[in-house]
Amino acid sequence: MKTDPAERILFRPDHILYAPVIEMAVREDLNHGDITSSLTIPEDQQAAAEIIAKEPFVVSGLFVAEAVFGFVDQDIRCSAGAEEGRWCQKGDVIFECQGPCRSILAAERPALNILQRMCGISTLASRLVQAVGESECRIVDTRKTTPGLRILEKYAVRAGGGYNHRFDLSDGILVKDNHIMACGSVTEAVRRVRAGAPHGLKVEVEVSTLNELKEALEAGADAVLLDNMNVQELAEAVRFARSLRPEVLVEASGGITLENVRDIAETGVDIISSGALTHSAPAVDISLKVA
Amino acid sequence: MKTDPAERILFRPDHILYAPVIEMAVREDLNHGDITSSLTIPEDQQAAAEIIAKEPFVVSGLFVAEAVFGFVDQDIRCSAGAEEGRWCQKGDVIFECQGPCRSILAAERPALNILQRMCGISTLASRLVQAVGESECRIVDTRKTTPGLRILEKYAVRAGGGYNHRFDLSDGILVKDNHIMACGSVTEAVRRVRAGAPHGLKVEVEVSTLNELKEALEAGADAVLLDNMNVQELAEAVRFARSLRPEVLVEASGGITLENVRDIAETGVDIISSGALTHSAPAVDISLKVA
Amino acid sequence: MKTDPAERILFRPDHILYAPVIEMAVREDLNHGDITSSLTIPEDQQAAAEIIAKEPFVVSGLFVAEAVFGFVDQDIRCSAGAEEGRWCQKGDVIFECQGPCRSILAAERPALNILQRMCGISTLASRLVQAVGESECRIVDTRKTTPGLRILEKYAVRAGGGYNHRFDLSDGILVKDNHIMACGSVTEAVRRVRAGAPHGLKVEVEVSTLNELKEALEAGADAVLLDNMNVQELAEAVRFARSLRPEVLVEASGGITLENVRDIAETGVDIISSGALTHSAPAVDISLKVA
Amino acid sequence: MKTDPAERILFRPDHILYAPVIEMAVREDLNHGDITSSLTIPEDQQAAAEIIAKEPFVVSGLFVAEAVFGFVDQDIRCSAGAEEGRWCQKGDVIFECQGPCRSILAAERPALNILQRMCGISTLASRLVQAVGESECRIVDTRKTTPGLRILEKYAVRAGGGYNHRFDLSDGILVKDNHIMACGSVTEAVRRVRAGAPHGLKVEVEVSTLNELKEALEAGADAVLLDNMNVQELAEAVRFARSLRPEVLVEASGGITLENVRDIAETGVDIISSGALTHSAPAVDISLKVA
Amino acid sequence: MKTDPAERILFRPDHILYAPVIEMAVREDLNHGDITSSLTIPEDQQAAAEIIAKEPFVVSGLFVAEAVFGFVDQDIRCSAGAEEGRWCQKGDVIFECQGPCRSILAAERPALNILQRMCGISTLASRLVQAVGESECRIVDTRKTTPGLRILEKYAVRAGGGYNHRFDLSDGILVKDNHIMACGSVTEAVRRVRAGAPHGLKVEVEVSTLNELKEALEAGADAVLLDNMNVQELAEAVRFARSLRPEVLVEASGGITLENVRDIAETGVDIISSGALTHSAPAVDISLKVA
Amino acid sequence: MKTDPAERILFRPDHILYAPVIEMAVREDLNHGDITSSLTIPEDQQAAAEIIAKEPFVVSGLFVAEAVFGFVDQDIRCSAGAEEGRWCQKGDVIFECQGPCRSILAAERPALNILQRMCGISTLASRLVQAVGESECRIVDTRKTTPGLRILEKYAVRAGGGYNHRFDLSDGILVKDNHIMACGSVTEAVRRVRAGAPHGLKVEVEVSTLNELKEALEAGADAVLLDNMNVQELAEAVRFARSLRPEVLVEASGGITLENVRDIAETGVDIISSGALTHSAPAVDISLKVA
Repeated sequence: MKTDPAERILFRPDHILYAPVIEMAVREDLNHGDITSSLTIPEDQQAAAEIIAKEPFVVSGLFVAEAVFGFVDQDIRCSAGAEEGRWCQKGDVIFECQGPCRSILAAERPALNILQRMCGISTLASRLVQAVGESECRIVDTRKTTPGLRILEKYAVRAGGGYNHRFDLSDGILVKDNHIMACGSVTEAVRRVRAGAPHGLKVEVEVSTLNELKEALEAGADAVLLDNMNVQELAEAVRFARSLRPEVLVEASGGITLENVRDIAETGVDIISSGALTHSAPAVDISLKVA
Repeated sequence: MKTDPAERILFRPDHILYAPVIEMAVREDLNHGDITSSLTIPEDQQAAAEIIAKEPFVVSGLFVAEAVFGFVDQDIRCSAGAEEGRWCQKGDVIFECQGPCRSILAAERPALNILQRMCGISTLASRLVQAVGESECRIVDTRKTTPGLRILEKYAVRAGGGYNHRFDLSDGILVKDNHIMACGSVTEAVRRVRAGAPHGLKVEVEVSTLNELKEALEAGADAVLLDNMNVQELAEAVRFARSLRPEVLVEASGGITLENVRDIAETGVDIISSGALTHSAPAVDISLKVA
Repeated sequence: MKTDPAERILFRPDHILYAPVIEMAVREDLNHGDITSSLTIPEDQQAAAEIIAKEPFVVSGLFVAEAVFGFVDQDIRCSAGAEEGRWCQKGDVIFECQGPCRSILAAERPALNILQRMCGISTLASRLVQAVGESECRIVDTRKTTPGLRILEKYAVRAGGGYNHRFDLSDGILVKDNHIMACGSVTEAVRRVRAGAPHGLKVEVEVSTLNELKEALEAGADAVLLDNMNVQELAEAVRFARSLRPEVLVEASGGITLENVRDIAETGVDIISSGALTHSAPAVDISLKVA
Repeated sequence: MKTDPAERILFRPDHILYAPVIEMAVREDLNHGDITSSLTIPEDQQAAAEIIAKEPFVVSGLFVAEAVFGFVDQDIRCSAGAEEGRWCQKGDVIFECQGPCRSILAAERPALNILQRMCGISTLASRLVQAVGESECRIVDTRKTTPGLRILEKYAVRAGGGYNHRFDLSDGILVKDNHIMACGSVTEAVRRVRAGAPHGLKVEVEVSTLNELKEALEAGADAVLLDNMNVQELAEAVRFARSLRPEVLVEASGGITLENVRDIAETGVDIISSGALTHSAPAVDISLKVA
Repeated sequence: MKTDPAERILFRPDHILYAPVIEMAVREDLNHGDITSSLTIPEDQQAAAEIIAKEPFVVSGLFVAEAVFGFVDQDIRCSAGAEEGRWCQKGDVIFECQGPCRSILAAERPALNILQRMCGISTLASRLVQAVGESECRIVDTRKTTPGLRILEKYAVRAGGGYNHRFDLSDGILVKDNHIMACGSVTEAVRRVRAGAPHGLKVEVEVSTLNELKEALEAGADAVLLDNMNVQELAEAVRFARSLRPEVLVEASGGITLENVRDIAETGVDIISSGALTHSAPAVDISLKVA
Repeated sequence: MKTDPAERILFRPDHILYAPVIEMAVREDLNHGDITSSLTIPEDQQAAAEIIAKEPFVVSGLFVAEAVFGFVDQDIRCSAGAEEGRWCQKGDVIFECQGPCRSILAAERPALNILQRMCGISTLASRLVQAVGESECRIVDTRKTTPGLRILEKYAVRAGGGYNHRFDLSDGILVKDNHIMACGSVTEAVRRVRAGAPHGLKVEVEVSTLNELKEALEAGADAVLLDNMNVQELAEAVRFARSLRPEVLVEASGGITLENVRDIAETGVDIISSGALTHSAPAVDISLKVA
């Protein structure tokens, strides 16, 4: 179910969806004003600035950087110097802007803080996707994102060639152990969600044994999440699932690394989800230079 | 200038300061409701839950987790099972709560997302502090924090034994190259900030050569930041600075790692600042178990 | 796909999800204070009040009314006098509260304004469900809701025995004519959404001819929406769809009334969606009496 | 006290007064993005769209629709195709816009949801005003409005030829039974509000018997509200009131319909207020077509 | 139209009306924490504190102070030591609280800043009221208030024995020169507002000559504002107005001082409005002592 | 430490820092619309207006006035007619604008309310600075500001030639009696704040006796605040402080008036802080004239 990157539509979130994060970031850092710049730089001094890559990485979020500068001062003009979702090299100028010098300095840190995180996630996503190789298997994210930044982090995953799992608790059904316990059985849990949920949502069930897998498949789950199984277990589970319900979606999760992701993909799972993609991707190294 | 941890007052941010982050995190994840739990778990079902450490780390932010659960549902009772700023071990139950099952599940992900990040930062801070050893040198953070989470991340640094640099652009003066360029000289830049700034703020100047350092010291800077110097350069700069102005504060910054931090500290700098402390600390591994 | 009402879990939205609507409603009506009550009723005067049904209807939203009174004044004690989702009769006391008289009067209008609308929707939903009779066909709502009240109005539909369609543009996929035009064909549109969307979302396609229906089915749509067809056309389309893909979900929409809903249901469609359910349900007649 | 519609100034609310409602409506419907459009429609695809009347109605709120499109995307250009307060016919294009296709689709539902409600209210108001005929009697609204939309709904009443009663609890005095009870008598209640209220507010008293009416008039009420009287009772009350205080304003309220409004007006009351005008006006039938 | 203070109902604004001001004040002052107290005072240290009058003044706003302390920390217990609207003496303890020491210090400045302003206004209002003596003339405020504090400042005026003019541009009609110019005449302006305004609002017209006064009275103004007339002119205007329309309300405004207010009142005007009451009342001298 | 006003950089707060205050002020005054203007002034009527000084004062805040007009209506064009920080004379036109007449009237009162307060503060600051004469002593403000307006009031102090003390509890350290009590001694309190505070903040200690002063100086305080001492005591304290620590900053506070400020400055203190500067500066007399 993986598509050719060349034709992939890489959709950006609407501006109104991340505008609040930008405002929060700027207000947090500016607080009641940049005292150093206010006292040293004349109000009308103009400047040009560049954001430079200090290591290679997959670019994402330049439009967010542009929105940060624009929020601080509408008179700052920006232009992206790199393409979303593509690798840049050390030394590349990935972004340029010009305008009032004080405003550029006031926007610098919030813009870099967001950008270095987004590019970090895109880069890790891209590495995982490359590791998977030719397989049809999707790399997807989780809900283990930074509070307030989920929409940007999920975009960054897509920019890196990954896909998104459900966005939140409302737009996807995932039946886990606690739900099953409350219902008494997988069968009853699946029946209840199907009976009450909007018809446009598939039902995914998290299982950790073959028995649970069997029950989930028989109960009519549209997808199953194989939690924390090793490669052998995964392979067996996939075979078993396909034999019962060839079209069921199979997702693997837990302990995914650049080292093991290919082996996991080769078990035949459709989807591999990784929390580290968003919670532990190291920031990339970038800096802003004022000319 | 480092104090005995035993007597250090580890102050927590006031609740009203991080309440907005909690609300944002919960609303982002809950969106218009947890459809799976709403359909499978009876409204009045009670549960108890534990947060368990799946690796050793320095604990911080349990009070934030408690506030997340409390925001979702006032009927959830929480108790911390570990002490802020102390190492826990794999398997430790660091947090317990009980209350309505649906509410616990709704709060789970936001609580864990914040907690795993804060503990990650505390742990990295603690490692850097330990690496420095007996030295008086302070490990401090930067403004390279996650948008919206600065107050929690700066607390996490303190919990790990580190110290805070200025919180934002308002509560500290740091004269950098752009300010100096705009003023024509270090001397004029220092004069201007001193002439206009509130009297309670020290003046720190970022320098990258001995000449700049000399000018900063002569202009009366209270502190100097030595940017991206190697250990030899740092050592020389410290000697030079002490010879001119023994009481001046000297900060080193740029490329700090667990490997080089001790050597840098031994150059005699007072302060070592690290951006990676907040922008690239990996999340710790924790999970919530419902009993 | 309709379930026994007796075992239906009628889930309420979490309080934090409708709290903003309540605050908005109270602030709008109270503005800078209830000048009449402030000048005539002593601050410490207590009162008891009842909300009385002045016609029969299906009750929903009593917990919202309680939240309105609680927002205005924590000292007001409330108790519901009727069950959510059940018919009440003219003269029934469906809600009681007591507390400071001024506060009760300040909360009265916002509470009634919300309640009369929710009950109106539940009642219309219930009438449509009853009209459908024994059929398995679901009555579902649309996105034609009142700005700001969607979460309450969708709950009211459930309380009346109906079901919810997608909540918003994020949690359901519905491919319409504009999307098809932009892609060149139904087939391409379905391929693109399937290629990019989270795996937990089904793909529904709106069609208005048998040709479009055929293409949607062949493209692998999980559900089809038959737009504005009459009963004969619907019957034919259902037969055709079932012959090609027995398990596909079929939804009818457009011009649904109490008069024609049964005939439509009998065509064999799985789902009937009605915008009037939320945008034109008349308010029920209720009043608050202070004792 | 009714003025010639031709010279009536039909004032619109200031944009900042309804901007929050628009933001709320768009965020509620867009949530974290229009997944279908994002995956099928190229980001730079332009489109033109029309809003078409599918039945005759009185137009109001086109400027709000324009503001919805503008909030979603500043690059959408709009033009009204009908005049506020006038009847349009089935098939009329009442609004046109062009701009980015995705943005138009994202704004469509919130714009229509508001517009269909406002036009519904204007149309009902206009029908009531027409029913009253030549009489000087004003048709006015109440506080029985939709939470958050009061300012737009009260405008819609004016657009239909009606007038507004007080906007909220702060900008008008209406002494009701609870206030009278708390004061011991109508006389004392009127005395208290007159003694404490700003001098620019008239005092209106709700009465339900001739005795209460007499006391209110003698206490100096500027206006009286005759609650739930039938036509005969109203006629008698008006005669009685005029005999005592010719200039007093007389309002009738309760159970107003298109059928009885003329008879009520002919009793000589100055004002007829109707809650159904805002809480139960059915939405008009409109649709947006993308060209 | 002045009432016996002994029986005046001194109504307080509802808590939800001033809660936003309190939050704003506390967040502004606390910013990201009280660094001095956090480092010197143990988190669990308790304290008791008193607010002491350091000069005599009319007390108002103790309930707001209580709300400030409560917003900062629910564990602070407060009790008022003086009565709203009454004079206190130098040395009086007007407010007591106890609770966590850090929280008391964090709330101190916002609480005092609000209280000293409110008491300052009440005191000036009281002095003006006393200066007027036995006259029936009301002292009223204007819209010249501090942004964000209007509701509290208007309450403080009442606490000092004054009355309120209209609260804002929505809840009172005041026809001024610009409105008259736009309409061509006083007569036409009065006709237009009467034709379009809610029936519960009186029409007040600002005039500065006898000719304008005459036209306003003949046009049926309910009240007239005599702007910036001296005592002789006022006396003549009052006589003239009473001769034409005995019941018309007459307001004087402009240049009101403690010295001239009695003479103005004795001209027979009903109302004297003063902007200085709210924009220039000096703060009273109070301080908080921690025991 | 006072600089030549001619070369002083008078920095303005960034627009995003005072935009919320403007919105609050306008919404508070406009409420649900200017009913008088809406009914009398045609929507498309244009006007020009001037703000006129009715007494001499130091101008500050014209950019805020401009922002108020711009917030209400982007079509209003403004130009400042006076320079920030300079005296204007009675009759001077300090501000001009033109645009839609209704919008100008809607913005008038909020703009004037803010402006008259800011100019009042600048004027008082300027008078205090002039009174101090040739001395190097700085006049500084306190945290005794109007809730919500601190950033504008602190700017107004600078516009009048004064300086700012710390902005809030976060960006300056001031050790007072309660902190000292909690620590047991001045020495311990200074040690604790120095041990925990960011290195860029100086430590200031409030003292009221020579003994306390001595201890503070010996503990290494960077600055001392002499609270409520008379001129003789101040002179002695300054001599004493200089003899021990020549470079220490000495601040005097308490009971500062235009009459005594010169004598206090001549004691040799570096800084004189005045709360009255912001809490009791009378508003200046200005008015808006529509042409």
